[in-house]
Amino acid sequence: MAENQDFRYSPIGVFDSGVGGLTVAREIMRQIPKERIIYFGDTARVPYGSKSQETIIRFSRQIIRFLQSKGVKAIVIACNTASALALETVQPEFDIPILGVVKAGAKEAAKVTKNGKIGVIATESTIESQLYTKEIHSHKPNAQVLGKPCPLFVPLVEEGWLKDPVTVEVANRYLEPLLESGIDTLIMGCTHYPLLRSTLRQIMGEKVNLVNPAYETARELKALLERDGLNNDGKQSYEGAMHEFYVSDAANKFKNFANSILPYGVDTTQLIHIEDY
Amino acid sequence: MAENQDFRYSPIGVFDSGVGGLTVAREIMRQIPKERIIYFGDTARVPYGSKSQETIIRFSRQIIRFLQSKGVKAIVIACNTASALALETVQPEFDIPILGVVKAGAKEAAKVTKNGKIGVIATESTIESQLYTKEIHSHKPNAQVLGKPCPLFVPLVEEGWLKDPVTVEVANRYLEPLLESGIDTLIMGCTHYPLLRSTLRQIMGEKVNLVNPAYETARELKALLERDGLNNDGKQSYEGAMHEFYVSDAANKFKNFANSILPYGVDTTQLIHIEDY
Repeated sequence: MAENQDFRYSPIGVFDSGVGGLTVAREIMRQIPKERIIYFGDTARVPYGSKSQETIIRFSRQIIRFLQSKGVKAIVIACNTASALALETVQPEFDIPILGVVKAGAKEAAKVTKNGKIGVIATESTIESQLYTKEIHSHKPNAQVLGKPCPLFVPLVEEGWLKDPVTVEVANRYLEPLLESGIDTLIMGCTHYPLLRSTLRQIMGEKVNLVNPAYETARELKALLERDGLNNDGKQSYEGAMHEFYVSDAANKFKNFANSILPYGVDTTQLIHIEDY
Repeated sequence: MAENQDFRYSPIGVFDSGVGGLTVAREIMRQIPKERIIYFGDTARVPYGSKSQETIIRFSRQIIRFLQSKGVKAIVIACNTASALALETVQPEFDIPILGVVKAGAKEAAKVTKNGKIGVIATESTIESQLYTKEIHSHKPNAQVLGKPCPLFVPLVEEGWLKDPVTVEVANRYLEPLLESGIDTLIMGCTHYPLLRSTLRQIMGEKVNLVNPAYETARELKALLERDGLNNDGKQSYEGAMHEFYVSDAANKFKNFANSILPYGVDTTQLIHIEDY
């Protein structure tokens, strides 16, 4: 597609309510390493998981306008809550492809389940939206989907208590109803949760599939770029850094967290006023 | 003061990052029941406790402009983080009295301590600001002040696990260094923490003074209004509700929480776009 030649060297926009979406950026860097990323973390307004749909849509529109001003060729909503509450509304409003993590995660879960019983752990807003259930049913109408909000997981991860006895006790409490119902597949429906993978594995046992939507989303993005002739072949040089990171609050936390999980040094995180977009 | 006659029937503005400041509003309602309150909870951008000073100052300015548009005669910053990070900067920018919870809490702690060892539990941003230490030293220069951020307390309170074994274990972990250092006074330096009072009491023992800045702030507000002839004598009638509640996100959580802790039914919480102020 000749018309896309100008855009194939453009970056991918990735956004999240804060640092969690870096786990999605990491998967994109691993799976399609020639793509450049413009990352935005809404650290001034984090978290999204307890907020209303109207607010999440307003925030998402501002961020997409910001990312468009940076000339991105496609956008990944790395935040499960924004994917669940805003994607459907904002997708038709913009003229570039916008992907969310929920669809990819739901599709994979529907594929790998054998007994048709799927658990979803996520923020309160994501669970209330019922979007995981709706998306799973679009692939597997008879699946039984059990959602469970886990509001303490994000603060526990941010406290760094990944394998702490307190975290194990909280996880036991949250996961008990899912264990009892006999699910064979569990979607880690919030970007922070894969960082609790070993605790989740310990509680759920070896036989339950743990689905990480970040991994599936990066695969879907790769396929979309190839299909549309938008994939970067790495042959054009560029000025400045390979990836750019923007935040709405200058907390050092972002840089520290980013440098701890990314295979890429984040030295120059730039602060912007997202409310102006 | 004749010039203040027009203002004495004006409401008090009270704001917080979210629901927590309602514990301060509650104290004001108890101690000066004739005063009307305009409450604003920044539920779209909650929490403030992990965000930078620049961001907290920007948010606080927007909120003060909003409260001024409602004709308030004085403002109480019910949020410890905003009191610690923004009060000093915004106070001289506006022409009405602005009070914060930190000064009142620090003053009381300096008064009641006997051994001069004072603990402060609060959000990360409040502790990092060192404002409690500075304020305590202005009253008691030789006091030894030990700060401890407790980032999991707010999500535990919002989960409703007030006396849960998990909360007791987390509190034990956070409070251990304060217990060991032999403090005789503990400031509950975040509006949510007084809701954990019985757990804190259990761990700290009967001999440690627990200081609630909300109580001290309401006392200070009462004295200030009387001094300036701004106190409402309740003789002027008004239209509409006695108190008004505004939020930046329409989550039902606010109304539920408000109705659970206030001696006043909150039926009509109004949503505003705080970013426009």
